[in-house]
Amino acid sequence: MKYDKFFSEDVGSFMRSPVREIFKKVDLASIYSFAGGYPDAATFPIDDIRRISAQVLEKQGAKSLQYGATQGVPELRQVIARRYGVPVENVQITTSSQQGIDVCTRVLADPGDVILTTSPTYLGALQSFRAYRADVRTLEDFAFDRPVKFCYVIPDFQNPSGETMTLAQRQALVALAREHEFLIVEDSPYRELRYSGESVPTIYSLAPERTLHLGSFSKIFAPGFRLGWILGPVELLDQIYVCKQSLDLCPPIFDQYIAAEFMGSGALDANLQKSIALYRAKRDKMLSLLEQYMPQGVSWTHPEGGLFLFLTLPEGFDTVALYDRALSAGVAYVAGSFFFVDGSHRNTMRLNFSFLDASRMEAGIRLLAEVIGG
Amino acid sequence: MKYDKFFSEDVGSFMRSPVREIFKKVDLASIYSFAGGYPDAATFPIDDIRRISAQVLEKQGAKSLQYGATQGVPELRQVIARRYGVPVENVQITTSSQQGIDVCTRVLADPGDVILTTSPTYLGALQSFRAYRADVRTLEDFAFDRPVKFCYVIPDFQNPSGETMTLAQRQALVALAREHEFLIVEDSPYRELRYSGESVPTIYSLAPERTLHLGSFSKIFAPGFRLGWILGPVELLDQIYVCKQSLDLCPPIFDQYIAAEFMGSGALDANLQKSIALYRAKRDKMLSLLEQYMPQGVSWTHPEGGLFLFLTLPEGFDTVALYDRALSAGVAYVAGSFFFVDGSHRNTMRLNFSFLDASRMEAGIRLLAEVIGG
Repeated sequence: MKYDKFFSEDVGSFMRSPVREIFKKVDLASIYSFAGGYPDAATFPIDDIRRISAQVLEKQGAKSLQYGATQGVPELRQVIARRYGVPVENVQITTSSQQGIDVCTRVLADPGDVILTTSPTYLGALQSFRAYRADVRTLEDFAFDRPVKFCYVIPDFQNPSGETMTLAQRQALVALAREHEFLIVEDSPYRELRYSGESVPTIYSLAPERTLHLGSFSKIFAPGFRLGWILGPVELLDQIYVCKQSLDLCPPIFDQYIAAEFMGSGALDANLQKSIALYRAKRDKMLSLLEQYMPQGVSWTHPEGGLFLFLTLPEGFDTVALYDRALSAGVAYVAGSFFFVDGSHRNTMRLNFSFLDASRMEAGIRLLAEVIGG
Repeated sequence: MKYDKFFSEDVGSFMRSPVREIFKKVDLASIYSFAGGYPDAATFPIDDIRRISAQVLEKQGAKSLQYGATQGVPELRQVIARRYGVPVENVQITTSSQQGIDVCTRVLADPGDVILTTSPTYLGALQSFRAYRADVRTLEDFAFDRPVKFCYVIPDFQNPSGETMTLAQRQALVALAREHEFLIVEDSPYRELRYSGESVPTIYSLAPERTLHLGSFSKIFAPGFRLGWILGPVELLDQIYVCKQSLDLCPPIFDQYIAAEFMGSGALDANLQKSIALYRAKRDKMLSLLEQYMPQGVSWTHPEGGLFLFLTLPEGFDTVALYDRALSAGVAYVAGSFFFVDGSHRNTMRLNFSFLDASRMEAGIRLLAEVIGG
């Protein structure tokens, strides 16, 4: 039987995640992987989760297993609202921050509508924008000759570049958004993972009337929980709420109570301090390994936080073509061109520094340097 | 600031769930509610979940908290595949069965495409179909003068009617689908909750080449877990898999391991037997209360399973208009017309019989009969 005629037009614009395709081909444990955005499993608060799970079943009982409100359970919305200092009605819980991106795009963009983004940018966001057949344009190049629905940015420790927008850059973006009347989607999964330098105000705090701020538990608690949140104006959240009814009725309830207790009791902050110390050491290790092993002509970013840095090889290198050789040698990365709106910058790659432990990191970087060195 | 110009065209077709709007207005505990599709909290296997949660953290450790495969964790796909006797590659895990409906619609239907359904039908499905601006038509009335993408049915203990399609009806639908070349989405959240009568084969078993079968843990385990599954041809599941990458990357991992252990170890079947006994008694109680209290001229369906039955009042009654009086009197239902594609049948209502315990059920039905009796 042929199925082609049954598919919607959107399907023609679906992108397969090259990251997820890599993980279908190889067993993560068998290679040195700098490819995914996986947190270090050592940061997962297993003992807290064991204790809190039992406590939630004891305290909330059946309520933690029943259907719940589409906006999220009140306890979780409250602890997030308190953390940011915003009213509860400005908080919508999402079933992962990826769902946050998807639902914002769904509610805001029709096929052909302009969405701006920096380039490079997060792959999963490009997937969502393209799946709705939006016209994805690069912020720096856009002439503002057509209306823009929103601009998508990751201001803190960007994925994939690792770079952070300065306050002046954030203010300039807000001014541009006010001038040309577009919204800003501020994706902020790494913000709490700062290892050096000074914190910069969120775009949401600079322009709460036109910003949807996406938060995530994936990098500060555990990605297996698939929980995130959106902060934004109630007028926008109200339509996101109605959309979410048809997406999945409500976020997972048991998980939300666990996350609420983890965040509300202070366990998250205690765990975060340990994670930051661990990741700071890993970032420093990564930077010194690159210094030690990479051939001349290779450069890289120096992130103040997050999980990634971005490597630029000399002109003429093609990291997509190089990829199979790297994989055969036992080391994985994500080719940088996948993160660019136009697929350019074939001489770049994204490297994750959160996942591997120090000795595997060294072995992996040595191998990668050999592959690059030729 | 005005937000209207930012919204996508889809937003104009969003429907607010009247069920969820009811729950925003009133505290469930303060009234006799026959409105929601809530399972009885007494069926929630709290002790199993406490034991299995700890066991999963012990056995799977960090794996249960890390990112996982978009198709679902292998252990859960395997136990579901075994339960149905199908290969694992025909199983996709979803973050709730509502997501199953949403993602099938997304992958199959463009604005204006014809989706067939029985009328009445599940409200959440109507919400999804309308949110994609599909042309929703009633199966019985459709002339087949245009191509159809798929027909959506709930063959077992339908929501809202409580009725079950006979084998002959299922075979006729399959023959029609083969003749007019459309797919079938078989929504099956209640199938395992049969209290009397004989099981009828699934449509998926009759036409695996053109059926997407949606299953759910919500009514047989706990709705707070937001886990469901889709069985279907690999060609369709492959596009659903790519779409799901941009929806939420993967279903909740910790929850999936808990569900896999609950189903795989036999605990689900043990719990199901108790749930069936409880719900059978509730259905029987509900039927006898209706017999005892309802005024003449009121009729209702006699479901062999599931959570709902459907009441028809004499012509001229309007259950939407009656609703505020019922709520003031302390009893809630869902007006039947919300489930009809054309909003007709204003003299009907859906009643849930799984949620209230026997004594509250009696008080509620007595009140409802008074409201109807006038």
